[in-house]
Amino acid sequence: MVYLDYNATTPLDPEVVEVITETLTTAWGNPSSSHEAGVKAKHVIATARQQVARMVGAKPSDIIFTSGGTEGNNWILQTALQHFCRGSSKIGLSMGDWNDAKSARNRPHFITSNIEHDSIKLVLEHFLSTGLADVTFIQARPLTGCVHVQDVIDAIGPSTIMVTVMLANNETGVIQPVSEICQRIKSLKRKKGETERILLHTDAAQAIGKIPVDVQELGVDYLTIVGHKFYGPRIGAVFAHNPGEDAPLYPLLFGGGQERNFRSGTENTPMIAGLGKAAELVSSNLDKYQTHMATVRDYLEESLQQTFPDSVSLNGKSPDSQRLPNTCNVSFLGTSLKGHEILSRAVSVQASVGAACHAGDRPSHILLSLGIPETVAWRALRISVGRETTKEDIDLAVQELKSVLDS
Amino acid sequence: MVYLDYNATTPLDPEVVEVITETLTTAWGNPSSSHEAGVKAKHVIATARQQVARMVGAKPSDIIFTSGGTEGNNWILQTALQHFCRGSSKIGLSMGDWNDAKSARNRPHFITSNIEHDSIKLVLEHFLSTGLADVTFIQARPLTGCVHVQDVIDAIGPSTIMVTVMLANNETGVIQPVSEICQRIKSLKRKKGETERILLHTDAAQAIGKIPVDVQELGVDYLTIVGHKFYGPRIGAVFAHNPGEDAPLYPLLFGGGQERNFRSGTENTPMIAGLGKAAELVSSNLDKYQTHMATVRDYLEESLQQTFPDSVSLNGKSPDSQRLPNTCNVSFLGTSLKGHEILSRAVSVQASVGAACHAGDRPSHILLSLGIPETVAWRALRISVGRETTKEDIDLAVQELKSVLDS
Ligand SMILES: Cc1ncc(COP(=O)(O)O)c(C=O)c1O
Ligand SMILES: Cc1ncc(COP(=O)(O)O)c(C=O)c1O
Repeated sequence: MVYLDYNATTPLDPEVVEVITETLTTAWGNPSSSHEAGVKAKHVIATARQQVARMVGAKPSDIIFTSGGTEGNNWILQTALQHFCRGSSKIGLSMGDWNDAKSARNRPHFITSNIEHDSIKLVLEHFLSTGLADVTFIQARPLTGCVHVQDVIDAIGPSTIMVTVMLANNETGVIQPVSEICQRIKSLKRKKGETERILLHTDAAQAIGKIPVDVQELGVDYLTIVGHKFYGPRIGAVFAHNPGEDAPLYPLLFGGGQERNFRSGTENTPMIAGLGKAAELVSSNLDKYQTHMATVRDYLEESLQQTFPDSVSLNGKSPDSQRLPNTCNVSFLGTSLKGHEILSRAVSVQASVGAACHAGDRPSHILLSLGIPETVAWRALRISVGRETTKEDIDLAVQELKSVLDS
Repeated sequence: MVYLDYNATTPLDPEVVEVITETLTTAWGNPSSSHEAGVKAKHVIATARQQVARMVGAKPSDIIFTSGGTEGNNWILQTALQHFCRGSSKIGLSMGDWNDAKSARNRPHFITSNIEHDSIKLVLEHFLSTGLADVTFIQARPLTGCVHVQDVIDAIGPSTIMVTVMLANNETGVIQPVSEICQRIKSLKRKKGETERILLHTDAAQAIGKIPVDVQELGVDYLTIVGHKFYGPRIGAVFAHNPGEDAPLYPLLFGGGQERNFRSGTENTPMIAGLGKAAELVSSNLDKYQTHMATVRDYLEESLQQTFPDSVSLNGKSPDSQRLPNTCNVSFLGTSLKGHEILSRAVSVQASVGAACHAGDRPSHILLSLGIPETVAWRALRISVGRETTKEDIDLAVQELKSVLDS
C-alpha cells in the first residue's frame, strides 16, 4: 500500500504520539484546578502555546486552541459578523424582521474566493442565504488557479468587514497571494460611513508544514491552524492578533472561561501537547520537509508525464502560480475511466479525487471553477506526498496506475 | 498526595489510554477517505458510537460526537433558538432591529435552573442580554439543593421552547428530578398559538459513570455527555432523539459534513475511540463503581463528622434529596479560614472549593443560591472521590485537614 493522500490527513509523527501518550497519563489534571494536578496540566498547555506561536511567528497570547480547523474557520467568520453588529450599535445578533435584514445597509459584506474549503464556503453561504451578510466569491483565475489581488480590491464596498482567502488550496496546492492582498487592503483609506477596518483572515490548514507561514509577513489579523495536516493531532488553533484588542474576538462557545474566555471548555491537554510538539517539528525541520516533498512530487510529475506521454494534465501547475511542494493534481486524458474508478482499481494507491469529505460521484467543484472542462475534471486525482514518501513509493504507484490505465 | 477532585476531572482509565494510544498509530486515516486508511478509521468511530449509545440506552444514530460538554451544551441551546426562529417563519437568525426583537412575542422562552454549569448559564444569559430569548432561572430549593418539578411547570408560557435542567449538580452532587420534569411536560396539552413542543435537555456531565443514566427512562430529547468526567478523554457527545426528525438539530459548525452534517470537522478518531472504551467500562462496571464510591464517600463524611464534631455542615445532604455517590460538599464551621485557604495549607489534599473553572476568591454561587449563609459558603470544600480512592486515602486527607484546622 502506498499512502499518497497527505492533504486529507497525515499520520502523527512518532514524537507527537509519544508526547500525547505521555501527557495522557502524566498531565490529566484539570488545567483550571489550583492544585498540583491542575498546575502541571496548565504548564503543558503554556509550553504548547509557545511552540505553536513560534511556528507561525506569533506571540503565545495570540494563539487560542480550538477543536480543529472547522471550528477555527466558523469562529472567525462569526466573530466578524458580531463585530459588525456591535459596531452598528446592534447588541449581538438579535432576531429581527427578515424583511428588515434584507436592506443591504444593515448587512456586513465578506469577500472570499470560490476555492475555499467547505468550512469557509458553507458558513458564508449560510450567512448569505439567511440574510446575515453579503458575500462576494472572487473567481480564482483559470490555469493559474490563483485569486487576483486586484479582483479582491475591486470587490471592496462600504460595508466590507472581512476578507478571507486561503493560503494554499487543498486540491491543487496553488498558493494564494495573501500577503499582497493584506498589504493592498491596509493601504486603503476608509471613508466616513464605511466600516473602519477590513479584517483579514487566512485558512492556513494546507500551508503549514509545507511552506513558511509567518503571520507578520502575511499581515493577517487571523489565521487558522489545523494539526492533522502537519503530523499533529486532530485539534487546531487560531491566531488572532492581540485578540480582543487589535483583532476583535467574540466567543463562539460560552462556559468555564478557559483560553482567557475566548474559548470555553476544559482543555484537551494531551492533544494540545501533541499540537505543540508537531509545531516544534515544523519550526525545526521545515526546510528539510519542504525540499524532500518537492523532490518527490516533482519526480512523480515527471514520471507521470513520461509514463503517459501527452495524456496527463497537471491541474493548477502554471509558470504564473506557485504550488505547495507536496501536491499534484493530475487528470488522465487517455482513458474513459473517471478518477474514482481509477482509484478503486488501483488498489494499492491511497489517493483521492479531491477533498476527503467529498464523494467521488461528481467532479471537483474546485477544478470546474478553474475553468477545467468537465471531462478533464472527472479524470482527476489528487496525489499528495509526505515527509516519508520515497521515489520507490512513487515508482510503485505510477506502475499501478499504468497497469490500470493500460488494461 | 491524595486526589479528591474527581468532579473536576478524572484520570483516564488505563484501558482508555491503551485504546487511544493504539488508535493514534493504527487509525490515523481521514474517516471520510474512501481508501483503506479511511475505512479503518470510520470503523473505529462506528464502534465507539455503539459503545456510547449503549451506555445511555440510545441508538447509535442518536449519538453525535463533539469536542466536549461545553460545545454540546452551547449547541443544544442554539439549536432550540434556531428551531423557534424557523417555526416562526424566520429564516435562521437574522440581524434585525434591536427594538423589534424586544417585543416578547418574537422571543423564545427557556426554562433552566439557577445551579447549572456555566456552559448552560452563560449561554442563556447571553441570549437574555442580547434579546434573543427570555429565560426563567428556577431556584433550586434550600437544604435539598433540588429543583421542584412544580416550579418548572408553573414557569411554562406560550413561547417556552426548551427546558434544560442538569441531571446532577457538579458542586453538591444533588440529583435533579429530570425524568419527572419530562413526564409532566409531555403530558401538557399545548394550545393554539403556543410553541408546539417543549424540547427537553439535560446536562448529564456529572451523572454518567456515577449513577444509571438512560435516555428513555429520563424521557429527554437531548443529553450532554462529557468524557473526562468518567475516565475518558477530553471530548464529548450529544444524544439527540432521532436527530433532525424527532429532536430538531441544526449544525453549530458548517464544513465537510461529518457526523451526517450535524457536526462538521475531521473526526478526532483516537479520542472518539477512547470515549467509546470509557463508555464500555461504565456499561460493564457501573454497579461496582457506584458501590465503591458511595462506601468511600460515606466513610469520608462519617470521618469528618467524628473528627470535627458539631462543626461540619454537609451542604446539599438532606433526607429529601439524592446525591451522586462520590460527592461531598462540606463547610468547616469551627475555623476562620476560608475554603481556598484550607486547601492551600493542606498541601497533600487535592480538592476544590467548587467548579474547577472558578477561582477561590468568592464563595460558590451555587451554595449561595441554595440559601447557604455566606460565612458557611466561604468555608466550603468540594471533595469528590473516584473509582480507586481508598479509605486510607480518606484517613490521610482527614488527618491533614485536622492538622490544618487545629493549628
Ligand atoms: C483548506 C482546509 N481548511 C480547513 C480544513 C478543515 O479542517 P478539519 O476538518 O480538520 O476541521 C481542511 C481539512 O479538512 C482544509 O483542507
Ligand atoms: C455539569 C457540567 N456540565 C458541563 C461541563 C463542561 O465540560 P467541559 O468543560 O469539559 O466542556 C462540566 C465540567 O466541566 C460540568 O461539571
